[in-house]
Amino acid sequence: MDSEAEKHIPQGYDRRLYKIRHSAAHVMAQAVLERFPGAKPTIGPPIEDRFYYDFDLPRSVKEEDLMWIERRMKEIIKGRHRFVVRTVSADEARALFHDNPYKLELIEELASSDPEEPPISIYQQDTFLDLCRGPHVPHTGYIKANGVKLLTTAGAYWRGDASRPQLTRIYGTAWKNRTQLDAYLGRLEEARRRDHRVLGKSLGLFTFSDKVGPGLPLWLPKGATLRDTLTEMLKKEQLRRGYKPVVTPHIGRLELYQTSGHYPYYKDSQFPAMEEPDGGGYLLKPMNCPHHIQIYAHRRRSYRELPLRLAEFGQVYRYEQTGELSGLTRVRGFTVDDAHIFCQHDQVKAEIKDTIDLTLTVLRSLSFDDFSVQVSLRAADDHKKYTGPAKLWDQAEDAIRQAVQEMDLNYVEAPGEAAFYGPKVDFMVRDALGRQWQLGTVQLDYNLPERFDLSYVGSDDRRHRPAMIHRAPFGSLERFVGVLIEHCGGAFPLWLAPEQARVLSISQRFAESAGAAYEALLTFGVRATLDVRSEKVGYKIRKAQGQKVPYMLVVGAREVADNTVRVRHRSGKDKGAMSVSAFAAMVRQESVRALSPGATEPAAD
Amino acid sequence: MDSEAEKHIPQGYDRRLYKIRHSAAHVMAQAVLERFPGAKPTIGPPIEDRFYYDFDLPRSVKEEDLMWIERRMKEIIKGRHRFVVRTVSADEARALFHDNPYKLELIEELASSDPEEPPISIYQQDTFLDLCRGPHVPHTGYIKANGVKLLTTAGAYWRGDASRPQLTRIYGTAWKNRTQLDAYLGRLEEARRRDHRVLGKSLGLFTFSDKVGPGLPLWLPKGATLRDTLTEMLKKEQLRRGYKPVVTPHIGRLELYQTSGHYPYYKDSQFPAMEEPDGGGYLLKPMNCPHHIQIYAHRRRSYRELPLRLAEFGQVYRYEQTGELSGLTRVRGFTVDDAHIFCQHDQVKAEIKDTIDLTLTVLRSLSFDDFSVQVSLRAADDHKKYTGPAKLWDQAEDAIRQAVQEMDLNYVEAPGEAAFYGPKVDFMVRDALGRQWQLGTVQLDYNLPERFDLSYVGSDDRRHRPAMIHRAPFGSLERFVGVLIEHCGGAFPLWLAPEQARVLSISQRFAESAGAAYEALLTFGVRATLDVRSEKVGYKIRKAQGQKVPYMLVVGAREVADNTVRVRHRSGKDKGAMSVSAFAAMVRQESVRALSPGATEPAAD
Repeated sequence: MDSEAEKHIPQGYDRRLYKIRHSAAHVMAQAVLERFPGAKPTIGPPIEDRFYYDFDLPRSVKEEDLMWIERRMKEIIKGRHRFVVRTVSADEARALFHDNPYKLELIEELASSDPEEPPISIYQQDTFLDLCRGPHVPHTGYIKANGVKLLTTAGAYWRGDASRPQLTRIYGTAWKNRTQLDAYLGRLEEARRRDHRVLGKSLGLFTFSDKVGPGLPLWLPKGATLRDTLTEMLKKEQLRRGYKPVVTPHIGRLELYQTSGHYPYYKDSQFPAMEEPDGGGYLLKPMNCPHHIQIYAHRRRSYRELPLRLAEFGQVYRYEQTGELSGLTRVRGFTVDDAHIFCQHDQVKAEIKDTIDLTLTVLRSLSFDDFSVQVSLRAADDHKKYTGPAKLWDQAEDAIRQAVQEMDLNYVEAPGEAAFYGPKVDFMVRDALGRQWQLGTVQLDYNLPERFDLSYVGSDDRRHRPAMIHRAPFGSLERFVGVLIEHCGGAFPLWLAPEQARVLSISQRFAESAGAAYEALLTFGVRATLDVRSEKVGYKIRKAQGQKVPYMLVVGAREVADNTVRVRHRSGKDKGAMSVSAFAAMVRQESVRALSPGATEPAAD
Repeated sequence: MDSEAEKHIPQGYDRRLYKIRHSAAHVMAQAVLERFPGAKPTIGPPIEDRFYYDFDLPRSVKEEDLMWIERRMKEIIKGRHRFVVRTVSADEARALFHDNPYKLELIEELASSDPEEPPISIYQQDTFLDLCRGPHVPHTGYIKANGVKLLTTAGAYWRGDASRPQLTRIYGTAWKNRTQLDAYLGRLEEARRRDHRVLGKSLGLFTFSDKVGPGLPLWLPKGATLRDTLTEMLKKEQLRRGYKPVVTPHIGRLELYQTSGHYPYYKDSQFPAMEEPDGGGYLLKPMNCPHHIQIYAHRRRSYRELPLRLAEFGQVYRYEQTGELSGLTRVRGFTVDDAHIFCQHDQVKAEIKDTIDLTLTVLRSLSFDDFSVQVSLRAADDHKKYTGPAKLWDQAEDAIRQAVQEMDLNYVEAPGEAAFYGPKVDFMVRDALGRQWQLGTVQLDYNLPERFDLSYVGSDDRRHRPAMIHRAPFGSLERFVGVLIEHCGGAFPLWLAPEQARVLSISQRFAESAGAAYEALLTFGVRATLDVRSEKVGYKIRKAQGQKVPYMLVVGAREVADNTVRVRHRSGKDKGAMSVSAFAAMVRQESVRALSPGATEPAAD
């Protein structure tokens, strides 16, 4: 039975940890039932790094309940109770769970899923019996009492449906031993310290307003500077690679989205339409492609113009459910660093390589060095559900494979993961905390060129359909910044830091010299601030470090005498005394290098 | 009677020209009636540089009709027919115009406007009789036959109401003599050549799409580059002046605009709301101020933070009538180079001076050297209709007056022209064709800080209301670019030109060297293109000049031998041979100077 049950372990999940966590969830349920005799357990699976169980409870869970439950779990674990599995008929199951309507609902589903009423499996340890498909460890002693910890509680609807009863979800975690548990709790604490929502507030990067609306970030000056600098970097890199900037409005007539197929098909994930009295109307744009297509199609195109790479930092809007919104990573308005490449089919491979190269350049420039590449292809068995000629698909899939191979990238192929309109390449990035994020995408599209009847005149003087590639190295700029904040814990590299340097006076006597140094920095284009408050310099340094300012420039007696500033890095490292001009040149050099890796400065000769 | 009638001449209009044009309109109406016996004249006033008359005609007007009418007008003019005025009662007027329902409608309005039925004035020359308040020249000979020309026809609704009959409007112009007429026709021709809608298309700057919607420009690559460069210039200048960038979404909840007072008050000039099923909803933002106010108010503010200058190139949307849309100068979506300054009341004068100085810096950098300044103040007689304490108004009006005086600006005061919420400064710019445009504005606001209950904590530790200044040096970026295109006829200054240089090969033999020069320019950051088609170099030069490319870099045998390019300005001036690097350094130097007039480059020492 258990080898059958092990099939339920998701790919990539450590098999032993999965079973430990699944078993810990049952042990937790037993302890909860002992604490809350009227409780009705519902479901409780392992998830990444953790497990949970949802209960219908007679009252809310307090801190002392959690402590009691965790203590009791450790006793049960030490009791080395065997997990015993047996199979029962639907009727037997109904009898066993007659007082739990949630389990009864699950039983009815299992029973109706197959007319032959297959046997239903039941796991039991000690006094606790659960409807469960497994797998579990052999006995509770395998769980390890010092590897278990309860974390938090949260509300959750039965089956995720807001119209059904609200349940109490208890989260816990379980590891093979205490060392692993401590390491995980350390990572959790670090993640909490780096939480972009917390840092976004303490560093003054962004805010939200109820009057503007949920999920619509307002970028404060430092956040806007960060955004602008990231954007500038990518713009320069794109110019160097022959991209052409365009700017398009944030709305379009409904018929634009009827042609593209986005309306009314994706109506529920879009803001309500702006309806005109005459029956027409506008939609806030959910993506930039239809607008770029209008630019492509505004006049006849020749093969000589291809590849045409239209790029825009285009703000788009999606109507995510309010419950799903979270900081910058799930928002209702976000900026796609979008480009659409229109090219001939034999240019696809070169374009894919260039877009991948661009994406990697961008990720590496931000120290995202640990990434993996996924190539999403058609399902092998069912080619009919994909739009576009099979021959083009074959070519494109080969082109993508060759591109990643020629670039020596580690990649995995994911058959069946392609969109119906084209294969794609996804970049999965692992951040400093080891969490994985899906960032940039390169997506081929055989659908929109067809729907908008796009064409170019070939060297044969005949009309041809161009290939279209969507690509976005950051993906959503908002989400990217959210991930980046957590990746570097708010300590942005010098070229990107919204505040690059802060001038600090040792005492009021040096306020004027500090002010002059600050003014000079501004003139040199350094993003500097000034702190000449009558506070101790140690206090001012701590404040600047708290704001993750890369450099503190201290001005005291010696510096005034030498006409220098003492340069101190946020890490605490003393870089010694130097002139303001030399410091500015250092900042400038690093910024120029980071902002345009491929450019050279001309010199009159 | 005529001295009374002269009161109807608008301020600033040459009195004699006004009477000439008004009289020419009557002469035209006489000729039209002779050509189209069933025609019904409606109204026909002088407008700037021209006059028109709207007719209900039995058929459409053809080119030969216009020629006939113009010829006949000259005969009537030469007939020296006196303009005779007389007054009649409403009943007499009704009898005179019994077969013209349009005139009858006007007579009823005149009659009902005053219970005493004032006399109605009638002007007659030769056979033509019109309901008219004057003034006119003494006789048709004053018009000058060689100073008159008919221009175009257009459709126009009776009283501008689309539900009423459509009329034919005939435009003509009349001047004191032939020299003046020719000069005007020359200006018209030049304006036509410079029309930004025509140049926008031929230079590939912007386009429109029916599917996206009327009045919503799509910026093509060259236009987007122009926009970006203008934006970059202003951003740098603003950073230098202590402005702080912010970025806000393009929508806001209805309640945001209910608080600001824009909704439902300005509902008709806004895109329809996005209504949510629960009764809430969103509005496409018609202005940026409420969003910036949310940023100001997201936390407690101290007097130490003031003045706080929040700047954003914020795209806003207004629902202009489709009939009023025109190229970039009247659009439905435009970008305001917006900033909102929150300051203490005693900082208003310094801020006004800095915003004026910024506006002038920007206008001068684009060769708008002929401008005038208007200071709009309260009406002297009725202070009650203005919001905010009279003392603050007095202070602010004095501050503005002192600011423009201390800056040695010529300005006019316009009492009664202030908005109800604050006085303002407007910049009127005269372009290369002598036309006047209202561009930048600096506006004080005592209303929004009140409505949003804004405050800061003063040095006295108490809450105070800040002053708020709206300012936009370009005004609308779209409109500004439209004006700029016409001002410079599409020949943008080097630093702003989307295509700064084009490399031309003299023959196919030099294509490779030309290509190398082009690649080097890109690496140096010059916006260059390459023309190595197998065409004569003279043809390629004409093409590049047609596209107003500032510099053509010609590559032939001598240049290849010397490792140089021959630099030719679009004006035709030969700048001689130089290395690509020296050319790039020249472009760079000019760009850096134009893009950041106040900045200095640091040098390591």
